[in-house]
Amino acid sequence: MKIGERHYRSLWTEQAGGPVHIIDQTRLPHAFETRVLDSPEATAEAIETMRVRGAPLIGVAAAFGLALAMSRDPSDESLAGTAARLASTRPTAVNLAWAIRRMREALEGLAPGERPAAAWFEAQAIADQDVALNESIGRHGLALIEREHAAHRRAVNILTHCNAGWLATVDWGTALAPIYLAHDKGIPVHVWVDETRPRSQGLLTAWELAGHGVPHTLVADNAGGHLMQRGRVDLVLVGADRVTRRGDVVNKIGTYLKALAARENGVAFYAAVPSPTIDWEVDDAMSGIPIEERGGEEMRIVRGLDGAGRPASVAIAPETTPVANPAFDVTPAALVSGIITEKGVFAAKETALLALFPRERKSQAFLT
Amino acid sequence: MKIGERHYRSLWTEQAGGPVHIIDQTRLPHAFETRVLDSPEATAEAIETMRVRGAPLIGVAAAFGLALAMSRDPSDESLAGTAARLASTRPTAVNLAWAIRRMREALEGLAPGERPAAAWFEAQAIADQDVALNESIGRHGLALIEREHAAHRRAVNILTHCNAGWLATVDWGTALAPIYLAHDKGIPVHVWVDETRPRSQGLLTAWELAGHGVPHTLVADNAGGHLMQRGRVDLVLVGADRVTRRGDVVNKIGTYLKALAARENGVAFYAAVPSPTIDWEVDDAMSGIPIEERGGEEMRIVRGLDGAGRPASVAIAPETTPVANPAFDVTPAALVSGIITEKGVFAAKETALLALFPRERKSQAFLT
Repeated sequence: MKIGERHYRSLWTEQAGGPVHIIDQTRLPHAFETRVLDSPEATAEAIETMRVRGAPLIGVAAAFGLALAMSRDPSDESLAGTAARLASTRPTAVNLAWAIRRMREALEGLAPGERPAAAWFEAQAIADQDVALNESIGRHGLALIEREHAAHRRAVNILTHCNAGWLATVDWGTALAPIYLAHDKGIPVHVWVDETRPRSQGLLTAWELAGHGVPHTLVADNAGGHLMQRGRVDLVLVGADRVTRRGDVVNKIGTYLKALAARENGVAFYAAVPSPTIDWEVDDAMSGIPIEERGGEEMRIVRGLDGAGRPASVAIAPETTPVANPAFDVTPAALVSGIITEKGVFAAKETALLALFPRERKSQAFLT
Repeated sequence: MKIGERHYRSLWTEQAGGPVHIIDQTRLPHAFETRVLDSPEATAEAIETMRVRGAPLIGVAAAFGLALAMSRDPSDESLAGTAARLASTRPTAVNLAWAIRRMREALEGLAPGERPAAAWFEAQAIADQDVALNESIGRHGLALIEREHAAHRRAVNILTHCNAGWLATVDWGTALAPIYLAHDKGIPVHVWVDETRPRSQGLLTAWELAGHGVPHTLVADNAGGHLMQRGRVDLVLVGADRVTRRGDVVNKIGTYLKALAARENGVAFYAAVPSPTIDWEVDDAMSGIPIEERGGEEMRIVRGLDGAGRPASVAIAPETTPVANPAFDVTPAALVSGIITEKGVFAAKETALLALFPRERKSQAFLT
């Protein structure tokens, strides 16, 4: 997407061998800074500290982390060790494991000398595929927005949680891709942007939407139920960090509350995910998926700009205040109207999901 | 309640005629500052800017605002004008209207010369009554906590939203009163404290609970659904700004989302309110009660302490970001397990409510 007149991806490289460039998302929206990743460890650190974030993007970042490792040391030990280090950075999103597995499958059969070139090629392929998948998600999700617009003949009010925009992917975004396409096509949309404490990724969403000229309103995470109760939301669109084969949606903490309010008020609730976000091995997200617990300082310290416009932070709670910070929650499939994928929109049911992705039946055969 | 070794109320006066002292809650928990209210206008400003906040406390503050007015000018015009000014400060809590009506009823039949003494007497009576009502609420709510403790034989996990503690009242609090009593009685309790964006009144709750030694954990507003889904909440206890005669609960924005999650997960959800918080004239909160919309700067500006421990603030969103800031929402009676009042706990139903408060049937007769 464009920032000013320049087209950016959220992560890019100018040549095989690196380095890898990222937009440092811990500085946004208060400062726009790019950063160089020149080692696997720098990549792991960037994922852990959420300089890069969003399920699709951290998968791509991990792939490039392995490519950086192969350029330094293409041995089996390096490959396995880097894969383990990167996989440990964040436990909930499945894209990380998916990308690492894909890289290992591409590299393990090769002689070490062949690995660097193959690794950079494969990482770039994963990045390019992410862009293509998201564009397809955008087209399929667009139909949902068009349907709401046809029904109401006014701006379509869409509520989103966290950031599932182009910053969370390589480009386009997942939940925001249909919104960008609708806006570009002249369909009036208005986005309710959940702040998404404690990391406040809603500020990234507002920044993205403002950059693209999409009308939006920032609200506290507490407001969504009230807005739905008053008929001010037509559609909830979110991304996901993992979707199980039966359609449970694991996404940023707070998503579940919005899904409950959507069902209560007859508002459609969709998750937009590329297929690498689907975990074919897990049915029940409540028992099968680890929920990352992050540090208390994310609750205690708030970043912004001081009165002079300089980046600054304040402590809102003393260090002695006990804090819990679960990063994700589970929205059971029963609350999900549908899953928007690159292959189309399907009901949050195993049969519907497998009908669209027949090759993944093999996992089912393995499980039963 | 005590701060260090000294007992404080959240608002007090040392003599008829004033001035009135308050704890400035916009400075908490980062700084403890008291402030003098020496005029009706200063009182109105303190309510509007939430230096004093919490439905019971703003009612008491308004009563003292009228007393300050009577000391300056006990005329009919002064009484009516001050009442109108104070009533306009915040539209949602009914306690404000209740306290103003009670003051007018006590004063309007008197000659102007008699009004100052009567006004200070009546305002103090309202304040003292608030303390007594909250203590009774505490005793009735305590039974609910004792029941959970008997059932689980471990610490009772209670989730609360906003601040319904002693800071929100003159003393004791509403939702926190049973918790303080349980803790003092040796029943193990642990409180999940919702941050409660955008004003972050959860920080006041954490400050109160820490001061009293009650175990607690601060969480983002997004976390409550996840905690309930995982069986980590036994009871939700909140205050309210207004409860209708059929038991709809109007409380701080986000309460509704927690009530939905409580019902979904079989967790009891109670609102603790003194009877002046009950609006006998309104059945349906969705149509009958104005929801205050507050300024966008509450979303954009976050206050805390800088690295040197000095009060400071940061802007988390640019001024150009559109913001909506509804301050309250409606939890329909169907989601409410019960209402804890000074007279006991009753089901959120008109018949149950009127059985406890038979005198208020007159409003019903008027309506039907």
